[in-house]
Amino acid sequence: MSIYPIILTQSKFTHQDNLKYPFEERGLQFGDGIYEVIRIYHGTYYLLEEHVDRLFRSAEAIKIQLPFNKKEVTDLLLELLKKNNMTTDGKVYMQVTRGSAPRDHVFPDEVMPNIYAYVQDQVRNMEGLENGVKAITHRDIRWENCFIKSLNLLPNVLAKQTAKENGCYEAILHKDGLVTECSASNAYLVKDGKIYTHPSNNNILHGCVRMAIERFTKQLNIPLIEEGFSVEDISLADELFLSSSTSEITPIVKVDNLEIADGKPGKITRQLQQAYEVDASITENRIKHTV
Amino acid sequence: MSIYPIILTQSKFTHQDNLKYPFEERGLQFGDGIYEVIRIYHGTYYLLEEHVDRLFRSAEAIKIQLPFNKKEVTDLLLELLKKNNMTTDGKVYMQVTRGSAPRDHVFPDEVMPNIYAYVQDQVRNMEGLENGVKAITHRDIRWENCFIKSLNLLPNVLAKQTAKENGCYEAILHKDGLVTECSASNAYLVKDGKIYTHPSNNNILHGCVRMAIERFTKQLNIPLIEEGFSVEDISLADELFLSSSTSEITPIVKVDNLEIADGKPGKITRQLQQAYEVDASITENRIKHTV
Repeated sequence: MSIYPIILTQSKFTHQDNLKYPFEERGLQFGDGIYEVIRIYHGTYYLLEEHVDRLFRSAEAIKIQLPFNKKEVTDLLLELLKKNNMTTDGKVYMQVTRGSAPRDHVFPDEVMPNIYAYVQDQVRNMEGLENGVKAITHRDIRWENCFIKSLNLLPNVLAKQTAKENGCYEAILHKDGLVTECSASNAYLVKDGKIYTHPSNNNILHGCVRMAIERFTKQLNIPLIEEGFSVEDISLADELFLSSSTSEITPIVKVDNLEIADGKPGKITRQLQQAYEVDASITENRIKHTV
Repeated sequence: MSIYPIILTQSKFTHQDNLKYPFEERGLQFGDGIYEVIRIYHGTYYLLEEHVDRLFRSAEAIKIQLPFNKKEVTDLLLELLKKNNMTTDGKVYMQVTRGSAPRDHVFPDEVMPNIYAYVQDQVRNMEGLENGVKAITHRDIRWENCFIKSLNLLPNVLAKQTAKENGCYEAILHKDGLVTECSASNAYLVKDGKIYTHPSNNNILHGCVRMAIERFTKQLNIPLIEEGFSVEDISLADELFLSSSTSEITPIVKVDNLEIADGKPGKITRQLQQAYEVDASITENRIKHTV
């Protein structure tokens, strides 16, 4: 996962060695910024438009004025791949903070956002995609505006770390008894041929893969119900899965040491994974198990 | 508020021009860190022990292993003032992040915390201390572990900015009807000779000045009741005030355009301000109004 040498900053390109941050920076001191992680297959962005749209929604929500329009940032991101001769599977990480200024909670009067985006290789997690992953349940103690993809990720970090310490891949977060999402992905439950997932309100991130899944379920005629399920519902689930740009659509086969159904990825999950591979034009290294 | 040239980093001292941050840094990408702001009067720290204790509590809560013990960091902070020949009123800002590592939510296997502390001049806000400040009320949408002085400060930033845009100094945050604290200070209400403030549980920062106020109330025989008050209670308050290391003990005289009592700082607030000046050994530039 080494970083490709050319990095996009403030609408310019530079070598990664040149990119250093001042210590009085609002991302570093307040987490006052937003980010996106965009998946790349064979050197091509997947769901680029959705990610750019969300970047603008997040920026608006915390009142950061982006120094480019959607077309301009799209072109810059495409140029970033070209400058790095990027042709493999990978991802881009892009971050925008309010900028550098003397530390004060209130917005600085005149400040330009600090921006950077860098590209990395990222192989598909075939083991997890094929056989599923384990998860823990964990209280959702995050703030109320999780639809903003902000740099305030400490509760997510701590939840995912707890998952890892329990030998698991993810933490399924629940608030007032209802599952909201996972620490770095959206969560779905399948029961009697229907998919349930938390409504896309302020309590969850509006995942770009989640949007793609909405399209897939329409194509496949699978009912997708935007209704939260409870922690108790998990033990009765036919299937459980998660989605994110790096994890794609990954089956969850064990939760808190309890097997989901027969402990194997379910049929609907497999259908969605296949739809994903088609949608993302993935031709090599595909999931072997078909429905 | 310019920064003194010598900065403490990772237990060493350096010139501020040498301190730059890598872009793959867990403070910058996750807000995965903690901080302290310690007040300085006449070149001497105020409540230093309380701040160092809290730094360790915050670090423990997010599982950052500090590379020094309390005595060692205290000595380093004292040395920082000496190296800068700091003799005026000011503050130190100290930050500890989990460190620099390739971006991944889970903790890096081997990483050293990134640390820096810098000193600035800070004059006392005599206008606010003498005449009081205005505040808005604002929903508390923060996460559940506000006792950790973490770098996840976006909701605080947005609340304080909203206060500023409404011509106010602070935002009084309320959760489920109860006032927790302000965006960057603790909140107190005085009614019938008693002081009410939110219990020091996970929903508020355990302010160092708040601890000092506990001492003052004992000395002054004023009942301090750790019981949350409601937004409705504010309109019936005899006095209202806030406390923090930079704001000290500041009267709040107007909330959402409604005057508190007669719109002037109250008697108990003044008593506490005087106790503060004695405790902090402030001899010059003192509050003129006495009780």
